[in-house]
Amino acid sequence: MASSTIHILNGPNLDRLGNREPDVYGTVTLADIEAQARAHAAGQGFEVVFRQTSREGELVEWLHEASDSAGVVLNAAAYTHTSIAIRDAISLIESPVVEVHISNVFAREAFRHHSTLSAVAKGVICGFGAQSYLLAIDAIAATASQAGKRT
Amino acid sequence: MASSTIHILNGPNLDRLGNREPDVYGTVTLADIEAQARAHAAGQGFEVVFRQTSREGELVEWLHEASDSAGVVLNAAAYTHTSIAIRDAISLIESPVVEVHISNVFAREAFRHHSTLSAVAKGVICGFGAQSYLLAIDAIAATASQAGKRT
Amino acid sequence: MASSTIHILNGPNLDRLGNREPDVYGTVTLADIEAQARAHAAGQGFEVVFRQTSREGELVEWLHEASDSAGVVLNAAAYTHTSIAIRDAISLIESPVVEVHISNVFAREAFRHHSTLSAVAKGVICGFGAQSYLLAIDAIAATASQAGKRT
Amino acid sequence: MASSTIHILNGPNLDRLGNREPDVYGTVTLADIEAQARAHAAGQGFEVVFRQTSREGELVEWLHEASDSAGVVLNAAAYTHTSIAIRDAISLIESPVVEVHISNVFAREAFRHHSTLSAVAKGVICGFGAQSYLLAIDAIAATASQAGKRT
Amino acid sequence: MASSTIHILNGPNLDRLGNREPDVYGTVTLADIEAQARAHAAGQGFEVVFRQTSREGELVEWLHEASDSAGVVLNAAAYTHTSIAIRDAISLIESPVVEVHISNVFAREAFRHHSTLSAVAKGVICGFGAQSYLLAIDAIAATASQAGKRT
Amino acid sequence: MASSTIHILNGPNLDRLGNREPDVYGTVTLADIEAQARAHAAGQGFEVVFRQTSREGELVEWLHEASDSAGVVLNAAAYTHTSIAIRDAISLIESPVVEVHISNVFAREAFRHHSTLSAVAKGVICGFGAQSYLLAIDAIAATASQAGKRT
Amino acid sequence: MASSTIHILNGPNLDRLGNREPDVYGTVTLADIEAQARAHAAGQGFEVVFRQTSREGELVEWLHEASDSAGVVLNAAAYTHTSIAIRDAISLIESPVVEVHISNVFAREAFRHHSTLSAVAKGVICGFGAQSYLLAIDAIAATASQAGKRT
Amino acid sequence: MASSTIHILNGPNLDRLGNREPDVYGTVTLADIEAQARAHAAGQGFEVVFRQTSREGELVEWLHEASDSAGVVLNAAAYTHTSIAIRDAISLIESPVVEVHISNVFAREAFRHHSTLSAVAKGVICGFGAQSYLLAIDAIAATASQAGKRT
Amino acid sequence: MASSTIHILNGPNLDRLGNREPDVYGTVTLADIEAQARAHAAGQGFEVVFRQTSREGELVEWLHEASDSAGVVLNAAAYTHTSIAIRDAISLIESPVVEVHISNVFAREAFRHHSTLSAVAKGVICGFGAQSYLLAIDAIAATASQAGKRT
Amino acid sequence: MASSTIHILNGPNLDRLGNREPDVYGTVTLADIEAQARAHAAGQGFEVVFRQTSREGELVEWLHEASDSAGVVLNAAAYTHTSIAIRDAISLIESPVVEVHISNVFAREAFRHHSTLSAVAKGVICGFGAQSYLLAIDAIAATASQAGKRT
Amino acid sequence: MASSTIHILNGPNLDRLGNREPDVYGTVTLADIEAQARAHAAGQGFEVVFRQTSREGELVEWLHEASDSAGVVLNAAAYTHTSIAIRDAISLIESPVVEVHISNVFAREAFRHHSTLSAVAKGVICGFGAQSYLLAIDAIAATASQAGKRT
Amino acid sequence: MASSTIHILNGPNLDRLGNREPDVYGTVTLADIEAQARAHAAGQGFEVVFRQTSREGELVEWLHEASDSAGVVLNAAAYTHTSIAIRDAISLIESPVVEVHISNVFAREAFRHHSTLSAVAKGVICGFGAQSYLLAIDAIAATASQAGKRT
Repeated sequence: MASSTIHILNGPNLDRLGNREPDVYGTVTLADIEAQARAHAAGQGFEVVFRQTSREGELVEWLHEASDSAGVVLNAAAYTHTSIAIRDAISLIESPVVEVHISNVFAREAFRHHSTLSAVAKGVICGFGAQSYLLAIDAIAATASQAGKRT
Repeated sequence: MASSTIHILNGPNLDRLGNREPDVYGTVTLADIEAQARAHAAGQGFEVVFRQTSREGELVEWLHEASDSAGVVLNAAAYTHTSIAIRDAISLIESPVVEVHISNVFAREAFRHHSTLSAVAKGVICGFGAQSYLLAIDAIAATASQAGKRT
Repeated sequence: MASSTIHILNGPNLDRLGNREPDVYGTVTLADIEAQARAHAAGQGFEVVFRQTSREGELVEWLHEASDSAGVVLNAAAYTHTSIAIRDAISLIESPVVEVHISNVFAREAFRHHSTLSAVAKGVICGFGAQSYLLAIDAIAATASQAGKRT
Repeated sequence: MASSTIHILNGPNLDRLGNREPDVYGTVTLADIEAQARAHAAGQGFEVVFRQTSREGELVEWLHEASDSAGVVLNAAAYTHTSIAIRDAISLIESPVVEVHISNVFAREAFRHHSTLSAVAKGVICGFGAQSYLLAIDAIAATASQAGKRT
Repeated sequence: MASSTIHILNGPNLDRLGNREPDVYGTVTLADIEAQARAHAAGQGFEVVFRQTSREGELVEWLHEASDSAGVVLNAAAYTHTSIAIRDAISLIESPVVEVHISNVFAREAFRHHSTLSAVAKGVICGFGAQSYLLAIDAIAATASQAGKRT
Repeated sequence: MASSTIHILNGPNLDRLGNREPDVYGTVTLADIEAQARAHAAGQGFEVVFRQTSREGELVEWLHEASDSAGVVLNAAAYTHTSIAIRDAISLIESPVVEVHISNVFAREAFRHHSTLSAVAKGVICGFGAQSYLLAIDAIAATASQAGKRT
Repeated sequence: MASSTIHILNGPNLDRLGNREPDVYGTVTLADIEAQARAHAAGQGFEVVFRQTSREGELVEWLHEASDSAGVVLNAAAYTHTSIAIRDAISLIESPVVEVHISNVFAREAFRHHSTLSAVAKGVICGFGAQSYLLAIDAIAATASQAGKRT
Repeated sequence: MASSTIHILNGPNLDRLGNREPDVYGTVTLADIEAQARAHAAGQGFEVVFRQTSREGELVEWLHEASDSAGVVLNAAAYTHTSIAIRDAISLIESPVVEVHISNVFAREAFRHHSTLSAVAKGVICGFGAQSYLLAIDAIAATASQAGKRT
Repeated sequence: MASSTIHILNGPNLDRLGNREPDVYGTVTLADIEAQARAHAAGQGFEVVFRQTSREGELVEWLHEASDSAGVVLNAAAYTHTSIAIRDAISLIESPVVEVHISNVFAREAFRHHSTLSAVAKGVICGFGAQSYLLAIDAIAATASQAGKRT
Repeated sequence: MASSTIHILNGPNLDRLGNREPDVYGTVTLADIEAQARAHAAGQGFEVVFRQTSREGELVEWLHEASDSAGVVLNAAAYTHTSIAIRDAISLIESPVVEVHISNVFAREAFRHHSTLSAVAKGVICGFGAQSYLLAIDAIAATASQAGKRT
Repeated sequence: MASSTIHILNGPNLDRLGNREPDVYGTVTLADIEAQARAHAAGQGFEVVFRQTSREGELVEWLHEASDSAGVVLNAAAYTHTSIAIRDAISLIESPVVEVHISNVFAREAFRHHSTLSAVAKGVICGFGAQSYLLAIDAIAATASQAGKRT
Repeated sequence: MASSTIHILNGPNLDRLGNREPDVYGTVTLADIEAQARAHAAGQGFEVVFRQTSREGELVEWLHEASDSAGVVLNAAAYTHTSIAIRDAISLIESPVVEVHISNVFAREAFRHHSTLSAVAKGVICGFGAQSYLLAIDAIAATASQAGKRT
């Protein structure tokens, strides 16, 4: 039986969201996003594990723990652009991983245009603020639904 | 009063979708996507203009025509990676433009990893097959809804 | 007998000039430029063929048609930076081609600093707004005048 | 039953062949090449569709139309070096595509040394003037003959 | 009322200072530097929080904690050259951050010439051994003094 | 009241103009250009300061002196491609600076295709021989005229 | 008296070894490797400290702890390719460090071809599966034996 | 009187053709190709010198020996991508040299996309298996025939 | 006996400091900096030679003259990024040279991120406005003091 | 029945080993290594073919001859970094090839960091002096032993 | 009648030769070189103009003055690697220019491996200390002698 | 007692000197150069070993044989630009090696501007035709003479 849990994993500095640089990230806090995500996922029958860390290694471990979940919404923040460890962790788990970003990373500094992770993610969603997370939940729900149909 | 029309513009070779390379693009045809998109948009009160062309210049012209729409879902296909003309056309219109891709372009050949368009789009959604289009419609609907609230 | 016609060819998105991004391009429209150019050329005894298209291939064809003109003022806009087809068309015609730009392209994004066309143009004029076109007409007139003297 | 038609598709500026730059391309015109190609193909039992366009999108469409032909001889000229759209069109059709060039592109400017198309073509023939086309017809004929033997 | 605390944060391997590679780093230990820094800061009316860690994420967290301090002296050591996470943490805090290095990093291996952090730091001081820290304290004191004058 | 003086500043080796490499630069000497420029400017009510030096630092100083002129015509010759000092001097003065070149630098060696100066100049004119200077004078006159109208 | 302990340190995701991607890493688990390594080292009179972590900073600290060991077998996994912190830690310790990899990293993605660590390691062994560890133990044993002879 | 001998020179590892990697090179052996080439050339009145070596210097010497032949069919294999010595040898001989490859080198690893030789060859033919050699013989025959007509 | 003179050498355009671009450089003039530097140095028993030039060669000569001074504070401005001549002059003198910048060069255009000089300077201080000079004087004073202690 | 012969092939300049640059390569000669390798291999039941040449083509031929051996220990020396011919020869043989180096190539000049061969070798061992060869023999023995078990 | 004067021009920092960095440049001073060069040239019937400057522009002017000399021996020192102005000055004069260096620049830092000047010099001689100058005089003498024979 | 033999070693294609491309290499043959070199060396008391080969490995072996000579004049021709094997051979011998080229390689194709050998040669002489060899003999004679004086 398929899992009904979605893991939403957040990387470095996202705990400071809404405190500064509102022109880039808006005024929404991570707690706001968590609340919206839980409500949105619940509406489609999913529970949510929602976590944040500034440690690359902890994101690796949390991805391992999410291996049998319905899916992972991953905002790796700064580690998106450099982490091969997180990339390898994505490759090693069963669940579909959706890479999300609050801002449109391609409209920012050049070093944010490259993602080490995208090639092993199922897909990428960026630029829609907190809604990026909700769209990712929908994408996972649709994947789960299709997988269900196949069985 | 805000527009209730979404323009969904498709670039070169997408008219052949579902005919070959099913391992990359699946077996869904562009007509299938059009039908799903129209139904999905209608459910949120939007009409859809759905078009395909293999001509770069025609995409430029169609973007001009979409200037006052609720939003544009743009799958520029091969032109995504090279067209400055389409980029300039995006910069010149009022509507939010969402860049979509059926496949996860970052998991394919290196020359597909760079998009000339992303920096001027509102956001990017890729890797979810036909569902990429539906998520983009949701993103536009949310944008329109927020804009409505502001007024 | 030498031609007394100057072809002024404009590339993608220039039909939208004056509508948006006034900080980059000003508020002058392409119709304004056409009127100024016709008057300026007439004062020196030249007729003007003035055209705009967003299609790369059409610019190629129009360059062929301008082969025996007194000269070509070419604002290829976005195609300036990528089109080898237009470059080859310039190489194949007899008339001197002057590359013009309304804005100073070297003060904008890095991808606008390189022109595929400059190496085969007679010269380049950029950064003077609509006046760039008028200076190009003067340059062609002077070339024609020198050619006349030689004969 | 296998097709007995070979499509010979020509890209931008090739309609001007023989008019200028004879040191690079010689004095043969495209009409000359068409006549030679028709005669050479006829001698091996093939009909020829022979077309030229300066529009990238039209080459894409013509490749789609050639999908069930005996093979395609493609001289994409300037688009050889930049067009991902044509590359994708080649990938999507059934017929073997032979990339040809009249001149030895590797002996010319550096930007002509790279072909976006070669990786998805069956093979490449360049440097033999009009004869490049005839050799490509022979290559397609041999391929067809081998395919016939297999059946 | 302005803070009178300066945070001095040290990155990986600095706890081993003085144990090896004396030709590069000298024989001074991190405890020596701490003592000198505390005395020097005290002379100007500042308290010092002095910390060392080999974990990138912990530096991120400590920067958050230093958000309202008089300033931060940051020797991120190896993470200087690669960490976008620390860069983002610097961008998100209020205090001026001075990047310091004991050795002249520009006289060492090429990969030490680039700092990911400098662009968002207030300034950079490198090459003066333990004195680099003392100069950075002076720089922060001067900044605080100027800020005080403005009020 | 606006200045009626235009400074025409010439860089290294231009004093040798007309002596060698006539296939690149023609046979016109710098004295010829000075005479033409003085006459052309006088016709529009401008005086000319015309100078040449092979010293980078002297060009910097002369740009400072031209700060309140009607405009500067700058042919920095070899320093065009490398001088950040001249670039900074341009940024620091009030007058519009027009970068000119006698030859079409983009049709010459690759190291002449990049200008360090263009990004801070008002515009660029190249390829028209001595006439490049006259067109630059016209461009400055038009700028002055527009500024006058605004007042 | 020389140490008789070898430290075997493993980086991110190696705790998942044998669970997925068997075509790359085989089906051997890290526990299997630990058992083989302990037995192999014991046969040559060495004890083994065997550890795994997904945290870069922890690998740095463990290297410090191994400073006086007989040698270190280091499989830094993903951190091999990016970590300057681990590189610096290797430089700072006395023991010979042998870099090992289970797979042949040079036969995998391009970003795995470069090691930040190799330049400061004693040597590199890769491509022999679990045996890579055993060969590294032999290399350390031989080094220790030679050092012993010198004394 | 023109030579009626064609030299067919083969580089390293081609003596192993047909033994391994049949998915890349097919099952045809070099002896098979020699037989086909001799027959094909004989049909057009040419004798064939057919040789293989794994030594770069020997290819250089053989090219010298072929200086007055009707033409050279050169499959330099691995040396294609790196040998300036062979390139210089081609430049120094009179005969037209046709570069051939059995496989489509542009569809293989990136380091096989560049040929050091193409710029000085008459033309390039690749991707048609053993037939690449036969097409090259035809190209040489046509060249010889044209040369004959001129005389 | 050690020198008690510090040479403060300033490069191109610094004589214009405070006149324009105050957002980058502030409103302090070079005369202000000279006054502050003289007072600050005097407080520690040092005399100051304070000079400015826009000529690269003159900076080279002044560095030679400063060979036996207590130290050199060098703000080479634009020449920082390109001058090998100044780099060589630094290498050839005895005195410690401290590279200073008023602004944080790493937060400006990319071409200002690289310094040709840093590798041969004693250290670098940037981003603290006029205070950068004062900190450099302190750094030289400390160096002199340490050297004194050693003797 | 599996071969019991190991081929140990040595490239250019290795015949001079021990004569010069002892700081890089030590004082061991190639004859010393041969003796150690023969003894070590004999201890595990293998005969050794031990050869040296400075000719790239000869290494290619020797690899062909080693095609059915138990394995190849290959120290291609300078050809390691450039030879595609040797790479292709490795790809074409059946035996496992272990790339070895006496010194740690990654601690030397940058051009020695890249190996053209590693991607097609079974594994790489470097940095252990003559012992590198002995470890490679062990690696081949283990491979042969595993292959034996499978049968 | 041909000139019997050789100009020997020396660039920045060469006046300090023999004072420092004797491991790179030896202990010979520029005055020593001048004396040797004068004697050596006199022995072949040439007078010498021997000059040194640290100013790029002055080297340009001195090259102009040497236009009709028997030849120029040019040690442009640091300007060798960056100066397009000096390169252009070399192109503009009649005399053969021999580029010399005291040290072997190719054995030093990477930025000294490229010369902007070599492409327009007659030849290059480097690495022989003061003798480099004497060999250059011989080369000029031989050139003059051959030119004499031709007349 | 020092050797009185100079080895002059010539690489690929130099046996064809004087036969073709006289605009690059002149009409002098290698036999002419040998004769001049023997005479020139004899005049200074040196015997000459003069050899040519197109084989890289043979040049390596000949360098070994020249290890105790008075010096080596090496024209490695095409191998100059790519051979690490020859570079290593130069490093391993005692004699000074002077790299020579007949033409000015820096005035030819870009791939001839880089020499793999220069960094380990004593010096470089290029651009003086056959005289390059004679100057190299002089350089070796001077070196031998100085070495003699030291003893």
